[in-house]
Amino acid sequence: MTAALLTDKYELTMLAAALRDGTAQRRTTFEVFARRLPDGRRYGVVAGTARFVEALAQFRFDDTALASLSDFLDAETLAYLADYQFRGDVDGYAEGELYFPGSPVLAVHGSFAECVVLETLALSIINHDTAIASAAARMVSAAEGRTLIEMGSRRTHEEAAVAAARAAYLAGFTGSSNLEAQRRHGVPALGTSAHAFTLLHTGAQGTDEKSAFRAQVDALGVGTTLLVDTYDITTGVANAVEVAGPELGAVRIDSGDLGVLARQVRAQLDDLGATKTRIVVSGDLDEFSIAGLRAEPVDIYGVGTSVVTGSGAPTANMVYKLAEVDGLPVEKRSALKESHGGRKKATRLAKASGTIVEEIVHQAGESAPQSKLVARGLTVPLVKEGEPVADFGLATARDRVVAGLHSLPWDGLKLSRGEPVIPTRMVPATGRHA
Amino acid sequence: MTAALLTDKYELTMLAAALRDGTAQRRTTFEVFARRLPDGRRYGVVAGTARFVEALAQFRFDDTALASLSDFLDAETLAYLADYQFRGDVDGYAEGELYFPGSPVLAVHGSFAECVVLETLALSIINHDTAIASAAARMVSAAEGRTLIEMGSRRTHEEAAVAAARAAYLAGFTGSSNLEAQRRHGVPALGTSAHAFTLLHTGAQGTDEKSAFRAQVDALGVGTTLLVDTYDITTGVANAVEVAGPELGAVRIDSGDLGVLARQVRAQLDDLGATKTRIVVSGDLDEFSIAGLRAEPVDIYGVGTSVVTGSGAPTANMVYKLAEVDGLPVEKRSALKESHGGRKKATRLAKASGTIVEEIVHQAGESAPQSKLVARGLTVPLVKEGEPVADFGLATARDRVVAGLHSLPWDGLKLSRGEPVIPTRMVPATGRHA
Repeated sequence: MTAALLTDKYELTMLAAALRDGTAQRRTTFEVFARRLPDGRRYGVVAGTARFVEALAQFRFDDTALASLSDFLDAETLAYLADYQFRGDVDGYAEGELYFPGSPVLAVHGSFAECVVLETLALSIINHDTAIASAAARMVSAAEGRTLIEMGSRRTHEEAAVAAARAAYLAGFTGSSNLEAQRRHGVPALGTSAHAFTLLHTGAQGTDEKSAFRAQVDALGVGTTLLVDTYDITTGVANAVEVAGPELGAVRIDSGDLGVLARQVRAQLDDLGATKTRIVVSGDLDEFSIAGLRAEPVDIYGVGTSVVTGSGAPTANMVYKLAEVDGLPVEKRSALKESHGGRKKATRLAKASGTIVEEIVHQAGESAPQSKLVARGLTVPLVKEGEPVADFGLATARDRVVAGLHSLPWDGLKLSRGEPVIPTRMVPATGRHA
Repeated sequence: MTAALLTDKYELTMLAAALRDGTAQRRTTFEVFARRLPDGRRYGVVAGTARFVEALAQFRFDDTALASLSDFLDAETLAYLADYQFRGDVDGYAEGELYFPGSPVLAVHGSFAECVVLETLALSIINHDTAIASAAARMVSAAEGRTLIEMGSRRTHEEAAVAAARAAYLAGFTGSSNLEAQRRHGVPALGTSAHAFTLLHTGAQGTDEKSAFRAQVDALGVGTTLLVDTYDITTGVANAVEVAGPELGAVRIDSGDLGVLARQVRAQLDDLGATKTRIVVSGDLDEFSIAGLRAEPVDIYGVGTSVVTGSGAPTANMVYKLAEVDGLPVEKRSALKESHGGRKKATRLAKASGTIVEEIVHQAGESAPQSKLVARGLTVPLVKEGEPVADFGLATARDRVVAGLHSLPWDGLKLSRGEPVIPTRMVPATGRHA
């Protein structure tokens, strides 16, 4: 399938008008940035960059696509689209970097014609994946090293689920329930059984939890995770250890007061000699309940709805704004929505300890202001003349998130609503060329 | 692409265990329902049914899919999946019907093996599309007959955007900005230009809004919508009418205090003789701000983020629960999460005026309790022996939403948080067969 119709109609009508009046070939820079972080967040995590670069290659208008556009586009525009292939440059933040309000997360450089049509696709991917990764990173820091499994596919659009699994893994989750995310992106797939499997083992003689457990252990081995809360949890744990023995891998609790139950179950498992059997909890967990369970004997968190919906912030609300035309900075001036003109780069300042202090956004052609702090350039080449030029591996991006969380001031890890943890300084043009 | 890997791993490990112990062929009914409406909503709108039925046909495990599963599934399970094709029955609420807590929105009947593997796909589609349609319907009732355009593709995953456009249209929006939604689902595509187009017309002599407007009118005709808030709105409106003449189709305002600006712009347009030029407003609208603009001279609302993210409720939180095994009702008993056993049907009671009063959920094999009210059966056949058997047209579904909103008691249309507007009565088995 082509990605080219995952696009708002107005991009193509603008293209038609620009082709007609000769402005379509002006050199432009469009920038992707967020005016603010969502919902009292203190930092965000950039995600979706690799998916966007991959989608660029599929952004071609085939005959089916062109046929669906022929009722409102003229012949010249249709001919342009038939030959369309992005040949421009993209730079921006590497996937997994932290970002703050005003950070120029992505910039697309090329003719107006080739850049304008990418707006919707770029924003859809970056807004979705960034929202998920930003929420997931908060859960990762709340879990303090314990394992997190993303299991929210059923709570979001079926294709968004695949991208959400990838974004959660990028942010530090251990794996996901989603099989397509494993096939497509290499995200480890995890999971064992649901209540339905226990309920299936109901016959004329009534319920039969032990048969269900036995079937699962026979098929998956004693290292499996048995779901113990279908009927009575205490009985469920006893049945689980009776069937699997003390080498049972884990038990899962999916309902009730998870903290209280985890303690009870831990004591029961220990009494039964299953001291290494781990406890998995799931059921409407978010970063706050994950943090609230830190004192309890929980080994693994299964997180669903909250992570795939961005835990209250399902979109990163980034925008794609024209910043420069034929070398001239341009800027919209309407109430509350000013963009900042000119092609830009970003530099992040940190103390010698690594703790970050400030984000500086300056004109691309000028050097960042002098500082005694440690400066790191954030803007890297991603695509040159239409070809990918960066390392888009998920493992590298995961390392960046770990480093980013490590670089946050203590306040940044607070889960409560707050301000962005470091300020962003927008440096006006100085004439001091790099 | 196959839909078969848009699935949680545990469905296939359960399948493997059930094939091994002989329970895989038990006859089962799985039901999709919501324990509650999200976020203080008074009603919900069922959506996604047609997409699910369509996806069923694509739910096949091809060689690529099977290869990706071979590291954790045994040969018998892989052989079963290679031949997999859903041959069971599906019934439930027609797309566009209202629903309430406990409404059996969808039920899947067949062997455990063929039903269990559909859980994730069914829930992903129904949860997403229902969340969007339920939010969109509130916007439609808030707009009281004015035109609503969905333009939120950029704020959600690129494929979720297509489904969101469809769901918003189903709920009564007039169209969407999304081109793929037009091609795939026939949703009317709408939209004209962004600020970037005006900014593009910047030269060494400075900004040039009139050139941008002229180019747009030349390409799209005077019936187009000109975006007037890139620089100064009063100048923008004057430029728009100067370029297009008083026959100009519409102007769009995307920022500022939309109510105040709409009044100013209306007066200015009328003074300029453009009395039929319509006013489009956009910019972070939701059902509350739509309602708040009812007294203003606004003709068309462009709605983005709020509709594609479900306006605070991005998922409908429906579950897929095993209700019956070989004719026996089954039920999970764990704290706060009880399901209700047995295959069920639903009937909605209304006054003679059409206003609905109660939802009754009863055993499928029994008749609904007698009532002097007007009773309408809600459970209809959707798929028989694997083949679609219903009318899945979007136009019919749109009509159902109109009828559903019309049938609500007045309280149902309140935008404030509240209880479900009618109660759901769960009727226990009576032995009174239909």
